[in-house]
Amino acid sequence: MKIYLASPDVFLPDAVDIGRRKVELCARHGLIGLYPLDNLVDIAARDASMQIFRGNEAMMNEASAIIANLTPFRGPGADVGTVYELGYMAGNGGLCLGYTNDPSSCATRVREFTEITSDVGRLIDAQGLTVEDFRLADNLMMIHALGLHGCALVTPRQKPADIWQDLTAFEICVRMAAERLAASQPRASG
Amino acid sequence: MKIYLASPDVFLPDAVDIGRRKVELCARHGLIGLYPLDNLVDIAARDASMQIFRGNEAMMNEASAIIANLTPFRGPGADVGTVYELGYMAGNGGLCLGYTNDPSSCATRVREFTEITSDVGRLIDAQGLTVEDFRLADNLMMIHALGLHGCALVTPRQKPADIWQDLTAFEICVRMAAERLAASQPRASG
Repeated sequence: MKIYLASPDVFLPDAVDIGRRKVELCARHGLIGLYPLDNLVDIAARDASMQIFRGNEAMMNEASAIIANLTPFRGPGADVGTVYELGYMAGNGGLCLGYTNDPSSCATRVREFTEITSDVGRLIDAQGLTVEDFRLADNLMMIHALGLHGCALVTPRQKPADIWQDLTAFEICVRMAAERLAASQPRASG
Repeated sequence: MKIYLASPDVFLPDAVDIGRRKVELCARHGLIGLYPLDNLVDIAARDASMQIFRGNEAMMNEASAIIANLTPFRGPGADVGTVYELGYMAGNGGLCLGYTNDPSSCATRVREFTEITSDVGRLIDAQGLTVEDFRLADNLMMIHALGLHGCALVTPRQKPADIWQDLTAFEICVRMAAERLAASQPRASG
């Protein structure tokens, strides 16, 4: 059973190692983890970005499920590439799982990036744009997609010391995915 | 022919007006624009965010195409809710169109949010995370999704004076969507 591992992990200095650890955790639970960096890409080629896209999309089309790392990336919200992939898998009928290693709410994090004021019961930022305030960990589209197309977002009670290296929440997702995928499989008789 | 209008427009102070203008532009080109705020939601209800999610997903399931406003929103990249919806429509086999009113590259904008240095041919930010540098307007997953599942990203040569009110790039998307959807329709004989 194949599971696509969507994450800004690919931007970490030890991106390959993290991928290896994630694939191993999947294997321990009987799943085949598909990690984007395992695609062969000629990074010096003119069409390198297109090769990456095609490789990732082919992996997603092969997978029955996705585990998306929605830990905030370079801003108050999740990495947009990961979010696109979560949407793609939801639209494609895949089982959707996700985690974030930052347990704060979306609105709390926006405050770190811009001044927020309150106006007639809604929060607005310095540009006058509304700040979504449903006390969710991120934009409601992703959070509810997980609940309705798979399993609710997994998040630790406390932010781990290293939000990029800690795979506790990830492993909980792997375990849930394995259980859900096993339950949906036809059982061998006898 | 129905087209889903995904955008952080919903966070603008005049969100309803913008939606009306967009729906009118669609109608002028023979399309029915579906704008998220046209869903009935009891915003005071405890499950308001879930009502919004279900309304948006139902609209997307009804639509043949999406026009995603990928103008950078409160950070260097596009709004994550919009990006999720673009992914969903791509995964669902819809025609994907999108625009941004900011013609700068993703890497250029990241520089405004964090210090960037160069290390062995790649750009890295203050946290040591790689900055994607394919000279694209945003993360490669969205940009290539548009090219491969619809029409290439539309962007003005120069940033308009008001990036949230200018609908020139949006209207180009509407025109392209109308042409593509008409071409894919069976013609009436005689």
